[in-house]
Amino acid sequence: MQLKIGIIGLGRIGTIHYNNITQQITEAEVVMVADVRNDALPAHVQFAQADQVINHPEIEAVVICSPTDTHADYVEQCARAGKHVFCEKPLDLSLTRIQQTLAVVQQQGIKLMLGFNRRFDANFMKLRSLVGEGKIGDVHVVKITSRDPAPPSLTYLQHSGGLFMDMSIHDFDMARYIMNKEVVQVYAAAATLTGGVVAAAGDIDTAVVTLTFEDGSMAVIDNSRQAAYGYDQRLEVFGSKGMALVDNNKPDNHVYYHAHGAQSSLPLHFFMERYTASYLTEMQAFVKAVKGGHELPVSGEDGLKAARIAVAAQQSVRMGGPITLGEVIV
Amino acid sequence: MQLKIGIIGLGRIGTIHYNNITQQITEAEVVMVADVRNDALPAHVQFAQADQVINHPEIEAVVICSPTDTHADYVEQCARAGKHVFCEKPLDLSLTRIQQTLAVVQQQGIKLMLGFNRRFDANFMKLRSLVGEGKIGDVHVVKITSRDPAPPSLTYLQHSGGLFMDMSIHDFDMARYIMNKEVVQVYAAAATLTGGVVAAAGDIDTAVVTLTFEDGSMAVIDNSRQAAYGYDQRLEVFGSKGMALVDNNKPDNHVYYHAHGAQSSLPLHFFMERYTASYLTEMQAFVKAVKGGHELPVSGEDGLKAARIAVAAQQSVRMGGPITLGEVIV
Amino acid sequence: MQLKIGIIGLGRIGTIHYNNITQQITEAEVVMVADVRNDALPAHVQFAQADQVINHPEIEAVVICSPTDTHADYVEQCARAGKHVFCEKPLDLSLTRIQQTLAVVQQQGIKLMLGFNRRFDANFMKLRSLVGEGKIGDVHVVKITSRDPAPPSLTYLQHSGGLFMDMSIHDFDMARYIMNKEVVQVYAAAATLTGGVVAAAGDIDTAVVTLTFEDGSMAVIDNSRQAAYGYDQRLEVFGSKGMALVDNNKPDNHVYYHAHGAQSSLPLHFFMERYTASYLTEMQAFVKAVKGGHELPVSGEDGLKAARIAVAAQQSVRMGGPITLGEVIV
Amino acid sequence: MQLKIGIIGLGRIGTIHYNNITQQITEAEVVMVADVRNDALPAHVQFAQADQVINHPEIEAVVICSPTDTHADYVEQCARAGKHVFCEKPLDLSLTRIQQTLAVVQQQGIKLMLGFNRRFDANFMKLRSLVGEGKIGDVHVVKITSRDPAPPSLTYLQHSGGLFMDMSIHDFDMARYIMNKEVVQVYAAAATLTGGVVAAAGDIDTAVVTLTFEDGSMAVIDNSRQAAYGYDQRLEVFGSKGMALVDNNKPDNHVYYHAHGAQSSLPLHFFMERYTASYLTEMQAFVKAVKGGHELPVSGEDGLKAARIAVAAQQSVRMGGPITLGEVIV
Repeated sequence: MQLKIGIIGLGRIGTIHYNNITQQITEAEVVMVADVRNDALPAHVQFAQADQVINHPEIEAVVICSPTDTHADYVEQCARAGKHVFCEKPLDLSLTRIQQTLAVVQQQGIKLMLGFNRRFDANFMKLRSLVGEGKIGDVHVVKITSRDPAPPSLTYLQHSGGLFMDMSIHDFDMARYIMNKEVVQVYAAAATLTGGVVAAAGDIDTAVVTLTFEDGSMAVIDNSRQAAYGYDQRLEVFGSKGMALVDNNKPDNHVYYHAHGAQSSLPLHFFMERYTASYLTEMQAFVKAVKGGHELPVSGEDGLKAARIAVAAQQSVRMGGPITLGEVIV
Repeated sequence: MQLKIGIIGLGRIGTIHYNNITQQITEAEVVMVADVRNDALPAHVQFAQADQVINHPEIEAVVICSPTDTHADYVEQCARAGKHVFCEKPLDLSLTRIQQTLAVVQQQGIKLMLGFNRRFDANFMKLRSLVGEGKIGDVHVVKITSRDPAPPSLTYLQHSGGLFMDMSIHDFDMARYIMNKEVVQVYAAAATLTGGVVAAAGDIDTAVVTLTFEDGSMAVIDNSRQAAYGYDQRLEVFGSKGMALVDNNKPDNHVYYHAHGAQSSLPLHFFMERYTASYLTEMQAFVKAVKGGHELPVSGEDGLKAARIAVAAQQSVRMGGPITLGEVIV
Repeated sequence: MQLKIGIIGLGRIGTIHYNNITQQITEAEVVMVADVRNDALPAHVQFAQADQVINHPEIEAVVICSPTDTHADYVEQCARAGKHVFCEKPLDLSLTRIQQTLAVVQQQGIKLMLGFNRRFDANFMKLRSLVGEGKIGDVHVVKITSRDPAPPSLTYLQHSGGLFMDMSIHDFDMARYIMNKEVVQVYAAAATLTGGVVAAAGDIDTAVVTLTFEDGSMAVIDNSRQAAYGYDQRLEVFGSKGMALVDNNKPDNHVYYHAHGAQSSLPLHFFMERYTASYLTEMQAFVKAVKGGHELPVSGEDGLKAARIAVAAQQSVRMGGPITLGEVIV
Repeated sequence: MQLKIGIIGLGRIGTIHYNNITQQITEAEVVMVADVRNDALPAHVQFAQADQVINHPEIEAVVICSPTDTHADYVEQCARAGKHVFCEKPLDLSLTRIQQTLAVVQQQGIKLMLGFNRRFDANFMKLRSLVGEGKIGDVHVVKITSRDPAPPSLTYLQHSGGLFMDMSIHDFDMARYIMNKEVVQVYAAAATLTGGVVAAAGDIDTAVVTLTFEDGSMAVIDNSRQAAYGYDQRLEVFGSKGMALVDNNKPDNHVYYHAHGAQSSLPLHFFMERYTASYLTEMQAFVKAVKGGHELPVSGEDGLKAARIAVAAQQSVRMGGPITLGEVIV
């Protein structure tokens, strides 16, 4: 029996999930799709309103890829309708709202998975498994570099929740995932250095965030909204027994040597190219866990924790000092 | 309108093509499949005999993935039935038989493409385009390393046509593809060094083949049936303006540094992992060319030329000296 | 005419300078050497007390490689004796004392160079020159990883001035060198994670330090006293036009592929192997500048600035927040 | 006691040896130097005629770096004078002449070492030791790429003995060194593809040489007189248990990522930069073996064997087929 899925939101990410489920995941099928636009609907699929998807009697699980400010509402509606949920990050920009939603999820006993797709990237999974096998020993420092090729549009930026909630949140989750420990303090240095659209949105575009974990170990994340050479996604984990790192993925691995230097390809351009496989693996994991009644690999609680670090980073920049997670003003 | 395709042979390669066409190539559909076994047939597909596929009135193109000794017959039957053909390499082990088949193909005016899938690998395409753009200048030397992780079964080896016709034939085609020039002479040094199944089959397992091109430039290919570390597929092109090379693809790009060294992943295990994307790109190119009435990117003539080099290499080992292609005994 | 040099202190670093000057720098000669031990003195060299070196009438420049707590005294004595000075870092553990010494140096008009040898490493010079040529554009973030293979002895640690003054000071100077800008704020997260000798010394062994520059750009430095895989010295510079990084130097560049992975060599073991060439280039630059009457490539002021950042980092750990350089308590 | 050395010939290579012995090898000293030019003689060294060096009563060993056509004569004179000899390759262009010289060397019982400096390169030594430790298993194929950045002068080419005797001879020795086995057959494909000075000299500039060893294993060497991107010196060894390779050495290991690609440095320019350390290690080995009465690491017989392969390669090109070493016409 295939898992019957409804999708809400068929933008960039929604389309990735739609294609993965319909073309590559034989254990699931898309029953219905909701989107504000219905001009580009795929053949063979019922297009409808969000509540039709949520209340469709055959649909067992809903994939939510609509704008952030609708996430909490849809998740709660799904929970009340007894549907399992896969929701893109973040659940909401407000920690209070996230907590309310998680309470509803828990009351209704549905499964909720947050779309931290990078956990399913082959490179990062490899580092996580080296940590898990004890190859790194006690982990002392995790370093994450995460830079976008170019900033999003002004409109996007204005509704994004800012650099930390929109972009770094992936890295906050990744730090917790690799470390398998909890963050206790956050310090963020940040600036607006690229000018242009980010300055117009009143946001920051460059940041260095230090996370301190419960045992004194640290993670450091550097973000930029604009890397001239493309999408930069690297990670390093250092501990008592060794160190492991992953470099970017490239479209090919040629090197061209000529009279003036040796040249190779740039990293894969952006998240759709870089994380193609991780989106598929993520959705396979969701389908498998829901069908099997297993625990989901990324929980709603994981989403709350990453969001709390993001809020702490915002406060750190505002206050000019480190913020203890317990003191985060929600 | 989708291109209507029939498939003959649903072994390892046939299954790759079947999945690619049904899941990823929206411009084509599989109408019917023939295979000697019908126990594992995919749902939604008609399973039949080869001649039913060939003579099916709706089928426009046939993909032939059956054993080598059936290739020439099926291609000729397809040609006479007016069906375009995609055929796995080699067309036949006999140059005379290949020539007969190509004559039928030409008479009937159908399109025939040989399955030299490596031409569609992103790495090798990149090197070819560097050559095409003049970045390498006049090409002086091409170097190809092509090693399998382990030898095939004794049964396979006994019907394979030998190392050169079965395995090196891909590299002979690749040398011609990168060079865009014709080979005039072949010298092969070869030995049976791994023992085991290859020795039992009376075949060679290790070879270094030097190809001389019409302008004096050279290609050198080294092959092995058994590389302890996996599937090794590298290429280098050297010319008057520079040099370009490609390394193997790996499942991830981590490096793990510990007290005793720095460790990274082995190459992707075998052709199904290494050339996943090239099989898809290859079939997309076939479908597009047939639908658009364009010239196919790999011709039957390309298949004949690679096979002729393979026969020359066999003769070179037997005679103990270089063989001019014009002197190849067919 | 050769520059006549005296050396005070013939420990590990002093011996490097002694050998470089006597064997490889033909424009200079060592006239006299002072050391507390005189059992292993090289042939052909006069062994003496520090004041004999400083007051030797023929000696034009003194190379000071004695323990840190003697640096300021010897520099001042040299200054008063009209001798130019090359002094290993740091000038002193006290900022006040460093300032006094620099005042004497200025009054006496001698040249003083601090031994920040890493500025003369081919890798870091390459990154600095890319910045200088505008290839990086406006620099937004510098990242430095600097880890030792193993902690020094307890005795050494107790007189070292702590991680920041002893070890990170090189990285603080490097950040200023690459950026060519001044630091305004320092935040340091730190812990004692390796236990053992560092814990016994009451010092920290692991730190992540964020430097904020006058224009809002940032540097982040991660240090460890103990990396199981050896000496780790990497640097990355990121800006509006691109990014450049350097990896560690290795004793050879082999890769060995076997059935269980691909293995390569570890980084060069420690600073004597890693920075062999930089020590020579550094001393050549000193000799050349003194002989030519040019400005020295690393000034006493550079030493003061790096030490002030180190003190700020110490205070940041103590206070639990970022320290503005202007507020550093001396 | 220092080993007392005389040097004959103070050209490029002679100067390297002179500097290494005088500056870095404390166990030896240069007593006298002979050269046709005496305008640039180093200070503190006696400049003289070759026979004065050879017959100097204090000199124990002679380093011969004069033109090739003087090597055999000088070696024989040294042997008769009871002096140990380090001689640059090749001993002579004629196999007969080399054999005569080796007979004299043997009669007189002196030690003779040939200047195959690449055996002392850290990269190649690493590969040799992996083979020696059994990490590669039975060696099946060795691959050597050896390309110069630009051809030498017409005059040099006319006296060089041709590509195989002048340039490939290093690679022939390297193949024997790594394999630790003897060559039985040689096939060389070659052409003149760069035009210019090599064509004017009537020589070849590009070659692919296949060596077959006694057990059927193979080596393949590709040479070019002109690589636009510099000096290319790579080696790979493949066997039953694994494969190891070494890449070129570079002046630094930076990578610069910008909007149009990722760029890194070219290999070290030419043999003086690439093999700096190997020349020193080689001479240290010579001095140590002579002083200790040990066997020399490269024998006169090694020189003869490499030269015989070179002659076989020449004959292979002339005859258009493989040459068995036993059939080499001397």
